[in-house]
Amino acid sequence: MSLLIVGELINTSRKAIKEAVEARNASYIQQVAVEEAKAGADYIDINCGTVVFEEETTIEWLVNTVQDVVKDIPLCMDSPNSKALRAGLRQHRNGQPMINSITAEKERFENVLPLVLEYQAKVVALLMDDSGMPETVEQRIKIVDKLIPDLIKSGIPQNDIYLDPLIKPISTGDQAGQEVLKTVQYIKSKYPDVHTICGLSNVSYGLPNRKVLNHVFTVLNLGMGMDSFILNPTDKQLMGLIFAAQALLGLDRHTMKYLKAYRNGLYE
Amino acid sequence: MSLLIVGELINTSRKAIKEAVEARNASYIQQVAVEEAKAGADYIDINCGTVVFEEETTIEWLVNTVQDVVKDIPLCMDSPNSKALRAGLRQHRNGQPMINSITAEKERFENVLPLVLEYQAKVVALLMDDSGMPETVEQRIKIVDKLIPDLIKSGIPQNDIYLDPLIKPISTGDQAGQEVLKTVQYIKSKYPDVHTICGLSNVSYGLPNRKVLNHVFTVLNLGMGMDSFILNPTDKQLMGLIFAAQALLGLDRHTMKYLKAYRNGLYE
Repeated sequence: MSLLIVGELINTSRKAIKEAVEARNASYIQQVAVEEAKAGADYIDINCGTVVFEEETTIEWLVNTVQDVVKDIPLCMDSPNSKALRAGLRQHRNGQPMINSITAEKERFENVLPLVLEYQAKVVALLMDDSGMPETVEQRIKIVDKLIPDLIKSGIPQNDIYLDPLIKPISTGDQAGQEVLKTVQYIKSKYPDVHTICGLSNVSYGLPNRKVLNHVFTVLNLGMGMDSFILNPTDKQLMGLIFAAQALLGLDRHTMKYLKAYRNGLYE
Repeated sequence: MSLLIVGELINTSRKAIKEAVEARNASYIQQVAVEEAKAGADYIDINCGTVVFEEETTIEWLVNTVQDVVKDIPLCMDSPNSKALRAGLRQHRNGQPMINSITAEKERFENVLPLVLEYQAKVVALLMDDSGMPETVEQRIKIVDKLIPDLIKSGIPQNDIYLDPLIKPISTGDQAGQEVLKTVQYIKSKYPDVHTICGLSNVSYGLPNRKVLNHVFTVLNLGMGMDSFILNPTDKQLMGLIFAAQALLGLDRHTMKYLKAYRNGLYE
């Protein structure tokens, strides 16, 4: 098993990206995309969800801007809006795209599914249905056992499905992290060919020194079998922990990847 | 659940300790013991196993030297030699002592068990029997299922038993880490009142940048339910990861311990 890393930096919720997008500053966006590619991202996330009223034209511009310099790494269209997803997918020419995200909500499922099938995309599926965000492990598992079979029945290969357990801050409840870890463990044992993915930083919301919490939570999720992450691939400390965890978990034959990362200066 | 931390620094396999022991330099030993106590050790390990021919008189001296300055933290007598264990235990006056270690080897079991019972000590039990060190998870589990019932039948409370899965370097086999993690998971699910413990640094033997591997392996073991560690409590980075992991695993009510560690400057 090898990990899938989705570079998270091109997101208009980040101030520097928002300003670059508003100014149509292509070179800054391209610089960030190239840095993510060089740092080892397998996908580059494109999220301009904060630009609500011009999301379709903005995502088109971002996809083309990135593809002008990054030609061998596919992009992940990241939006709850199926029209924006389609606008981005139409411009995509870097191989198999990724869509973030579908959910078990009836309307969103029906709107996003045709795009996944038409573009033969990998798809991030959030554990959320029309009753809202799940509170407990049991509620999450109930959605898992509906969403995964529904996606498979619709014709999506298991290997293209990435389940996101939806992480709540531990500051809102002591068990918020443990619930995610147990859900990941359940998915890996029941659906071994389906992937799990997440953006981790939400877990530390409201607490000081968030970086250490995000890093440790990444390692804990790796231990449970999570194999895909939406993160900042230029964070050398985080990437160093991930390479170490892979080696310790027996996922790195003869610790070759760890040793290569070491030789390439990841731990300096 | 709260973690149990055994401070590992007073060990004659460390050069500075060896020299201090040979010179009967009490003040250096006391300084290290006080540092471990201040850093939050629950037990202070005393290991002079390298001083083979004078282990009994040496452990006596070390126990008394440490107890002259640390009066509220108990000690862990760490030796394969039951005579040395007894010599140390005779001097112990800081509460409930710990013995490291018993094994499932017939002779060692019979020699160490009476000490555990006589001193009502906590005991570290290594997963090793007369056929040697186990290679696979199955072999480890076979020893677990013999050793734990044998200890309980002998009258040792489950809460005083600390199983050490014995860690081999991942440089000797890709699955060495995963085997330990699976064994810990098995013990925690089958014997929830028994503890698991280990000294982690062996896992990284033969690889560069061992610190990151040791740190990540600590977090992975915490994720599987390990609740006791033999480590350097003055390693602020490692202790910081442990506090973060406890908070993320739902073992730190309202993240109070994490916040306290933060306020006390652990992450500076």
